[in-house]
Amino acid sequence: MPSRANNSRKAVTGSSASRPVRGELAILSQIRSRAGRSSFPGISLGIGDDCALLRPRAGEEFAVTTDLTVAGTHFRLDWHTPESAGHRALARGLSDLAAMGARPVAAFLSLGLPRGFANPKGHWEGSWVARFMDGLLALAEASKTPLAGGDLSETPVVLADIVLIGAVPTGTALLRSGARAGDLLYVTGSVGGGAASLPHLNRLGKESNADAGAGGLRPPRIPKALAPLLARHLAPQPRLAQGLALRRRGLASAAIDLSDGLSTDLTHLCEESQVAAEVDPALLPIHPGADLNYALHGGDDYELLFTVRPATRMPKAIAGVALTCIGRILPARANRATVSVLTPQGPEPLEPRGWEHFA
Amino acid sequence: MPSRANNSRKAVTGSSASRPVRGELAILSQIRSRAGRSSFPGISLGIGDDCALLRPRAGEEFAVTTDLTVAGTHFRLDWHTPESAGHRALARGLSDLAAMGARPVAAFLSLGLPRGFANPKGHWEGSWVARFMDGLLALAEASKTPLAGGDLSETPVVLADIVLIGAVPTGTALLRSGARAGDLLYVTGSVGGGAASLPHLNRLGKESNADAGAGGLRPPRIPKALAPLLARHLAPQPRLAQGLALRRRGLASAAIDLSDGLSTDLTHLCEESQVAAEVDPALLPIHPGADLNYALHGGDDYELLFTVRPATRMPKAIAGVALTCIGRILPARANRATVSVLTPQGPEPLEPRGWEHFA
Repeated sequence: MPSRANNSRKAVTGSSASRPVRGELAILSQIRSRAGRSSFPGISLGIGDDCALLRPRAGEEFAVTTDLTVAGTHFRLDWHTPESAGHRALARGLSDLAAMGARPVAAFLSLGLPRGFANPKGHWEGSWVARFMDGLLALAEASKTPLAGGDLSETPVVLADIVLIGAVPTGTALLRSGARAGDLLYVTGSVGGGAASLPHLNRLGKESNADAGAGGLRPPRIPKALAPLLARHLAPQPRLAQGLALRRRGLASAAIDLSDGLSTDLTHLCEESQVAAEVDPALLPIHPGADLNYALHGGDDYELLFTVRPATRMPKAIAGVALTCIGRILPARANRATVSVLTPQGPEPLEPRGWEHFA
Repeated sequence: MPSRANNSRKAVTGSSASRPVRGELAILSQIRSRAGRSSFPGISLGIGDDCALLRPRAGEEFAVTTDLTVAGTHFRLDWHTPESAGHRALARGLSDLAAMGARPVAAFLSLGLPRGFANPKGHWEGSWVARFMDGLLALAEASKTPLAGGDLSETPVVLADIVLIGAVPTGTALLRSGARAGDLLYVTGSVGGGAASLPHLNRLGKESNADAGAGGLRPPRIPKALAPLLARHLAPQPRLAQGLALRRRGLASAAIDLSDGLSTDLTHLCEESQVAAEVDPALLPIHPGADLNYALHGGDDYELLFTVRPATRMPKAIAGVALTCIGRILPARANRATVSVLTPQGPEPLEPRGWEHFA
């Protein structure tokens, strides 16, 4: 009589399209077979032991970040396809690596699933989890980030905690704390598009689910005209190449990724650098379809916000993504707001009004 | 007008006993102030940037493990104090490091909280989260494991994903795959106590909450006579010193930690080593209050199960914890169960009947 573990081994090697996938070990085997097809530099031991083993190159240190993604908070089953939810879960962590100028080494995924998601009709292909993993692993492959381990548990809602480990030459990581008064403030790409997508997704999601009747939550089809805007939210591109180049070419003095919104993330950068900042709204590269409010306070852009010493000669773009000066760094003073925005009446305080849990 | 971030900075430096702690940034500040009081070797940048930075020693590689702990699955609000839940969440990951013979370098915590837990009456001290962090950080301190980062999100139930990063000299980690036919099978400490605690906790939890009326879930007081047994479940001690010594002294050929139950974890070890194993139940160091069934299939012991080459001279204990030979490793054969248990009628197959999600 074969043991349960032998059954799960079969699921790894056999065709899975028509074989029921039941239980934790079988699901883990499916993920392992998708994730572990080849070996990767830097990973000396992958999925299948108590720990994975990561081998640093001489002279490098590791950057580590964790991001918890929860259905209903970070994505919605009636807005996001499983592929988009998987892509976004990994993109959040990759964006943190990008902000440090780190090269991805490995990702770890702790996945929480309600019973129905783990085993909808006993088949793996086409299941919510399989499609979530497809979205996640497609971005992992594109960014050369192997999935090296993780955990799986039953939870009341779908959730994914992603751990990203990257490498940087020791002492060279881009930090939030490196900005000095006199530096210029830059942003990659465009801002506001991530948040400006939300009202469209809300409307489309309602329409889609009005049609669906009681058949469960269904993410909408995206009209062609809205695709470029909504892609900013549904499939954000972490700026790994830009972060790496900013660090390697010594262009940036400080950096942070724009996940919670410009007003909030710039406040974080200023606090860690003990400086103030002034943003000129006329300079902001606002994404078509967004407006100034989305650009200043909307989250989910996953662009890099960074500072540059005034004498640095800056390229106009890195790897096809524009770099735009949007303001400057000022000394922190008791009577000055941490972040100000220029108006015809002069600088006005810009309160952090981006995303905050439990607020 | 102070920004929200300034408020959260005040929460770090000021006395927090009587100040309301509201919102994500304030909660993170509290955790940061508790966790980040001193600097640690190996962490070149802790909480407060996009990533933490970990600096490996020359010739070392990093062991990484993630463990997702969910209320209702891994602990119960009517069985476990918040301190016990926090202790157990960290102990699971430390036990994985112990199984590799790794030295802890850093922990990361992704914490999910329902709104009520994040801010019960606006006070930090005495709140469920504060007590959870107390339990987690007490074990972190005892095991010299600094909390270097993490994430916080609103979730329908309390959950904690713990990431542990440890270090081992390159190529020396204890693996599941190192066992060979002829090796002897050992276990640290005692087995069965973790699972044998559960019926007691179930009974005590019911009694405690019958008294509590509608006042919410309340973990029970533990009667003195049951304390040693229930401590096996409520405050398991990861065998870090034993794992380190087994690796450094070259005593073990393979190792795994007993988290899911002996029958399941031994099957994992055998599969990764491509061997079979035979357990002699008469040799099992069964914890007082447990029985053979708990010892073979109960999880939550967090002891180390390891193999030893037959010529190795084994000490009777390491750092006060007994080492007991419980069986031997055999060649894998088509007509032989992966794991067998000796009976008066000869060896009988031992199916993995430990913990599995979605089973």
